[in-house]
Amino acid sequence: MGNDNFVKDITNIEDDFTKWYTDIVLKAELADYTDTKGCIAIKPYGYAIWENIQKYTDNKFKETGVENVYFPVLIPENLLQKEKDHVEGFAPEVAWVTNAGGEELEEKYCIRPTSETMFSILYSKWLSSWRDLPMIYNQWCNVLRWEKETRPFLRSREFLWQEGHTIHETENEAKERTVKMLEIYADVVENLLAIPVLKGIKTEKEKFAGAEETYTVECLMHNGRALQSATSHYFGQNFTKAFDVRFQNRDGKEEYPYQTSWGLSTRLIGSIIMAHGDNRGLKLPPKVAPIQVVIVPIAQHKEGVLDKANELFEDLKKNYRIKLDDRDNYSTGFKFNDWEMRGVPIRIEIGPRDIENGVAVLVRRDTCEKETVDISKLNERIGILLEEIHNNMYNMCLENVKNRTTVAYSLEEIEENLNKNQGYVKTMWCEGLECENKVKEVTGAHSRCIPFEQEVLHKKCAICGKDAKKMIVWGRQY
Amino acid sequence: MGNDNFVKDITNIEDDFTKWYTDIVLKAELADYTDTKGCIAIKPYGYAIWENIQKYTDNKFKETGVENVYFPVLIPENLLQKEKDHVEGFAPEVAWVTNAGGEELEEKYCIRPTSETMFSILYSKWLSSWRDLPMIYNQWCNVLRWEKETRPFLRSREFLWQEGHTIHETENEAKERTVKMLEIYADVVENLLAIPVLKGIKTEKEKFAGAEETYTVECLMHNGRALQSATSHYFGQNFTKAFDVRFQNRDGKEEYPYQTSWGLSTRLIGSIIMAHGDNRGLKLPPKVAPIQVVIVPIAQHKEGVLDKANELFEDLKKNYRIKLDDRDNYSTGFKFNDWEMRGVPIRIEIGPRDIENGVAVLVRRDTCEKETVDISKLNERIGILLEEIHNNMYNMCLENVKNRTTVAYSLEEIEENLNKNQGYVKTMWCEGLECENKVKEVTGAHSRCIPFEQEVLHKKCAICGKDAKKMIVWGRQY
Repeated sequence: MGNDNFVKDITNIEDDFTKWYTDIVLKAELADYTDTKGCIAIKPYGYAIWENIQKYTDNKFKETGVENVYFPVLIPENLLQKEKDHVEGFAPEVAWVTNAGGEELEEKYCIRPTSETMFSILYSKWLSSWRDLPMIYNQWCNVLRWEKETRPFLRSREFLWQEGHTIHETENEAKERTVKMLEIYADVVENLLAIPVLKGIKTEKEKFAGAEETYTVECLMHNGRALQSATSHYFGQNFTKAFDVRFQNRDGKEEYPYQTSWGLSTRLIGSIIMAHGDNRGLKLPPKVAPIQVVIVPIAQHKEGVLDKANELFEDLKKNYRIKLDDRDNYSTGFKFNDWEMRGVPIRIEIGPRDIENGVAVLVRRDTCEKETVDISKLNERIGILLEEIHNNMYNMCLENVKNRTTVAYSLEEIEENLNKNQGYVKTMWCEGLECENKVKEVTGAHSRCIPFEQEVLHKKCAICGKDAKKMIVWGRQY
Repeated sequence: MGNDNFVKDITNIEDDFTKWYTDIVLKAELADYTDTKGCIAIKPYGYAIWENIQKYTDNKFKETGVENVYFPVLIPENLLQKEKDHVEGFAPEVAWVTNAGGEELEEKYCIRPTSETMFSILYSKWLSSWRDLPMIYNQWCNVLRWEKETRPFLRSREFLWQEGHTIHETENEAKERTVKMLEIYADVVENLLAIPVLKGIKTEKEKFAGAEETYTVECLMHNGRALQSATSHYFGQNFTKAFDVRFQNRDGKEEYPYQTSWGLSTRLIGSIIMAHGDNRGLKLPPKVAPIQVVIVPIAQHKEGVLDKANELFEDLKKNYRIKLDDRDNYSTGFKFNDWEMRGVPIRIEIGPRDIENGVAVLVRRDTCEKETVDISKLNERIGILLEEIHNNMYNMCLENVKNRTTVAYSLEEIEENLNKNQGYVKTMWCEGLECENKVKEVTGAHSRCIPFEQEVLHKKCAICGKDAKKMIVWGRQY
């Protein structure tokens, strides 16, 4: 086994992680490149993962009172420009519609890179009294950011996401909402995708354009690179003042509400690939796997085999997302590799001898372990096994995080640790932008976040030696 | 009662149907206008209807093997131009992205008005053998068509829809798919939206740009105008040849597959409003109503009333989409009108005397009938009542269709009937484009379709008097 390639045309993960990633995206048919540069076509297998993420997340949202809406994809230029930091952050990477219906437009529109501006202007129209608050709206939609370097799922010019935008009567309520949504994201990533997260707040330098505070869930990939997986922003009154969103408060006075926004995107599919995958290919967390169980009949030409496989299929499909691979133009061995490469959590093998013995063989994708199970107990055993696989996948990732998390007391040490381990490097920090810039310059790492769970490693900033204020985590990123 | 306005600010339906429609869209908070001309913001109440339509339709699709995907919103100019009829149909109403990421683009992109071109080019890349067929892909997305005159939901520059695109080994299989999807649309409109449909095939003049055949489900609105509610297209090999989509058939020969596409959009929300609404406002079909039942407590300040109302709410919410209106700053009368205007199918009134008697009062939105029901039987009774309301709403629409369907034997008669009834006018037709143009010119009506259910009304074309080939239906449209 070792580093052998199990599937033809997939680059070895240790040789070239980037190439390995792209190979998996293409070979597992998650997505493909298109004639629209920097934009991908998400294929059925990839999209089904997104649908599972959507369904779970949308339910969680609605339990907390989120209401879905849909606002225009085109944003007039003057709206984008109303909030200074925001336009500076986004203007360089938007796409402009200048001509439509056969005519040059008087005012050009940008395709939304995010919709704070559109939500703010509509809130200004709809809000009048404190009784209208909070407004807790969300939309599932496409957005466009003209990135120079793109990579499927991770950094695509167009991507799918949800963007929630809320306004509240008080600062406190808005901050609570910001954190509540981050907790949902942490839940999605950990309990659905089986990837442990690091929760914290972004530095001034790394926060969202126009936000007062940005909260983040960070993940570590197989190779030790960090990935920002979802963010939640607190805006204070920045946008509500810029867009003149006002309400009459309980004392009859005019006031500006407090705003948040939060988003999670198809980038998460990239996280799944990079956090869990191995040299056999994709490894899908059971809760989002479009196919949780694949039945591969052995010697399917023999009498009774396909019948029995079909019977199992019909029985198990009531509880699991299941597929029967009865293709007659592929060998059993090919099918094994193929479904492993596509990351299906459990394979059921059933052949003439198994049928005779009233058993089937279950093979786990995560550990490759086999077990023989009584057919009568298959249904129950699969449920338990999927849970076990989820937990094991989570723990394998957690192990990676632990192995790659280090502490540093100097800039040199940060660099050394990163060069050796990549991963998260924890240091104390003075909160100075200069130190942050220096780390970036010297090591190529960005600050990931100031973790919610603070530790006191030392009294001094690891970079400048002045008094430290916070523990911060650094990491090289995607 | 009669024609009185029940809700302030809603125009009388008989006085000005168009204004009545817009009033409802705004007052019932389904959508609002935005700073992006011709594009609406779909608000939570409107979007929840769309979610219910999506959920039902998507399940129906998946039962027939449809797989969801997501392809780029931007289509390179050269792709749009590959199929001659298609580009002629769509080029005049597309929006162009000419500048992005701070640079003028070498090739401009249009925002998809529909995605036949994008699907075709990707199919050409992915298809190789008959074993890959059929490909039955669908996407839920936004599209943009730069219409000159817009109206919320009915004709918005940006709208949400699903677009299915399939390729097949044989002509027969593709045609079957075209009809199968039309049957799903008919099911959605009739069984979910409670609107009877007229099913048929579009004339050459009215068919989709680039299609060989277009099938349609047509609906009749309250005022007798027709609305094309969903369409399904058979393309033959038009696009597969234009985009060089080829496969090796079972005999080892290269061949072009046969293609279909089919779509249903947020326009359906417009159908719901216009088919069912009345002077009290919106009237929502129970199966898509975001709120199926609203509880309005009577004298809610009296002891025990809100407790009981809450108890009912908790009990009924297990089975129904339900809301308790316990606002203390509105009168009971206001609440009655408000929820009627918002089209909630059933209102529950519960006050001190009802509680004493162990009953509640149910009021139907469709007929305004009241009935007193034992609280112990409420749950069951609501289920039956929602079904009855659905059926009654369907039948009221069907009655409207019957009353407004006429037969004509001459051009003058077509015009007379339309002026009197609007509605559907059935005539025999020679299949000549000239006759179709004449009807349009003289009466303003378009052909709705050549119904699947044909009748022989006469032997001659009602317009030119030559031998008739088909029965056709005419109607003025939205």
